[in-house]
Amino acid sequence: MPAHPPAAVHRPIPPSVSWEGGTGGHLRLIDQTRLPEELVFLDCRSPEQAWVAIERLKVRGAPAIGIAAAYAVLLEFGGQEPSSPAEFLERTLKAVDYLASSRPTAVNLFWALDRIRRVAEKAAADRLGGGEALRVLLEEARGIHDGDRQMCRAIGMHGSALLMDCSGVLTHCNTGGLATSEYGTALSAIFTAQDLGHTLQVYAGETRPLLQGARLTAWELQQREIPVTLICDSMAAQVMREGKVQAVIVGADRIACNGDVANKIGTYGLAVLARHHGLPFYVAAPSSTFDLSLADGSRIPIEQRGAHEITESFGRRTAPAGVAVYNPAFDVTPAGLVTAIVTERGLIQPVGRDAILERLGAV
Amino acid sequence: MPAHPPAAVHRPIPPSVSWEGGTGGHLRLIDQTRLPEELVFLDCRSPEQAWVAIERLKVRGAPAIGIAAAYAVLLEFGGQEPSSPAEFLERTLKAVDYLASSRPTAVNLFWALDRIRRVAEKAAADRLGGGEALRVLLEEARGIHDGDRQMCRAIGMHGSALLMDCSGVLTHCNTGGLATSEYGTALSAIFTAQDLGHTLQVYAGETRPLLQGARLTAWELQQREIPVTLICDSMAAQVMREGKVQAVIVGADRIACNGDVANKIGTYGLAVLARHHGLPFYVAAPSSTFDLSLADGSRIPIEQRGAHEITESFGRRTAPAGVAVYNPAFDVTPAGLVTAIVTERGLIQPVGRDAILERLGAV
Repeated sequence: MPAHPPAAVHRPIPPSVSWEGGTGGHLRLIDQTRLPEELVFLDCRSPEQAWVAIERLKVRGAPAIGIAAAYAVLLEFGGQEPSSPAEFLERTLKAVDYLASSRPTAVNLFWALDRIRRVAEKAAADRLGGGEALRVLLEEARGIHDGDRQMCRAIGMHGSALLMDCSGVLTHCNTGGLATSEYGTALSAIFTAQDLGHTLQVYAGETRPLLQGARLTAWELQQREIPVTLICDSMAAQVMREGKVQAVIVGADRIACNGDVANKIGTYGLAVLARHHGLPFYVAAPSSTFDLSLADGSRIPIEQRGAHEITESFGRRTAPAGVAVYNPAFDVTPAGLVTAIVTERGLIQPVGRDAILERLGAV
Repeated sequence: MPAHPPAAVHRPIPPSVSWEGGTGGHLRLIDQTRLPEELVFLDCRSPEQAWVAIERLKVRGAPAIGIAAAYAVLLEFGGQEPSSPAEFLERTLKAVDYLASSRPTAVNLFWALDRIRRVAEKAAADRLGGGEALRVLLEEARGIHDGDRQMCRAIGMHGSALLMDCSGVLTHCNTGGLATSEYGTALSAIFTAQDLGHTLQVYAGETRPLLQGARLTAWELQQREIPVTLICDSMAAQVMREGKVQAVIVGADRIACNGDVANKIGTYGLAVLARHHGLPFYVAAPSSTFDLSLADGSRIPIEQRGAHEITESFGRRTAPAGVAVYNPAFDVTPAGLVTAIVTERGLIQPVGRDAILERLGAV
């Protein structure tokens, strides 16, 4: 590892989520459903527009959803100052509850909205006036956003250390800049290794049904000039058997108190395959992804999505009309299959309740 | 099980391969790349047309490829009687070699063409004249075709016995009537169970990249009114974990002497997942799928196919331009992960060299 890592050589990717303007501004998103064909921005000026953008995966990735939702609460006011602390609190809580209903599995959404709810309750209790109350909301949303940037870099440092002896690594779905504020979670470990002078050969599972691996991860790695090979999800076992990868690293949407990990459908199968091939299986996620209220993963609600994502997601019908479809968006990997969880606060290894509570400072 | 199984209730599927006419006839195929949107027939009147149909997967499925190639040798003559036994033999062998180059992995192709080669050599040695020599070829191709029908039914009887205690079963790719002459291999076990009054809930993996499971298996099961649920390949582990299936049954493209099984990419991963979940993993294949010249699966050539199948297979680009792709069409499942192989001659269980040689009558 060189003492002075070379400057990263890559085309910068614009932020996937940003807030344009002051308290009367609006939310700007990269429409991730249009990538990699087109880089299109979507401006949301109402909570309803933001809700639809989250539900339709125009913004996706657990941390990015949290950031977007936090900003989106401000859209409830449209720059109009509330006439009283009571009106401010009522409308804020209404927007929080509404935005929380957009997707059920990623806990970062609820974590971010809970932060907004708490500062709103404090502002109302402090009898803060209209414009000042809105500035409190914006400041908190910006704080969530800034914290995420630092989180990504810290996960990258801790995670890259696990990959410096690997030549190839397998990942799933998208966990990079698009899914977060900047460097990502699992991909941050790969980007940071690159910054430190260690280039990994990345095998990216395409991630059916919505192909976040093919559309987004392959694109982000290309932008950063990191060698990436795209595979179908069903090829992961063969890639492992041929020794092309020495580790698997993925993100998470919610982690229970015992270390069970909910993540994009297909993750659990990869964990089983990694175990069979003697490969380490790493999960990279910020502390906001842990839901310590859940004893284990069986309590994590799993979002079921529409059949059309599988039968006609390529713009062409690829299954007979009327066929029954099972389309869970996530699965739960038991803690026993996870070698380590990489958080911004360091590694959790071995994965279990005590190590999690200790690392998160919850004991 | 009722003493008199009810008559099968289903819409008949036309044969995927047929020969229209006498020695001057032509090969008719269902163009499987157009299903399930359209049922379109493709008439081949030259070996070149048949070669392209095989290479482009318009006809696919190991047994169906063998049948189609056997008939296609006759297209070399276009109904014109060869002027001498020498010319007959030379042109037959040329067509056999040419057609054998269409796809590398499925051994049934070589097995069927070898049968044609042997009868042609015998006919030439017997100094058979023009029209009579062509009739020998057609008779042999029809024999391969008829033998396949009987094979399918026998595999169905042996295989269905393994599934009568299951409520759900998982399968991969397409192994039904489209892939064979009539009932199929792995799907024949499911169709036969249905004929015997036991309806299985079938989970069909869509089978990326070319979606034979979504396009063909789901369609065939619908035609037969057997309940089918389509899943992405990455959901198989979750379906197993939830207890929705009690067995996995797949086909094969080539089986080595020790029982290692080459089959559609994704099969090996399913075998690992089945083992992890304590589920039996069955392979259904005719004796013509065994290649006893290969000591183990490491010698089976694996066809590598083009990147476009993954990056733009449904008429829309779903990955960034220029991305590297790994696209093996098959993988090899070690014999140790296969619970039993179902052949038309009965079960091979436990799977290993001695049991295979004994069952195939090769000792």
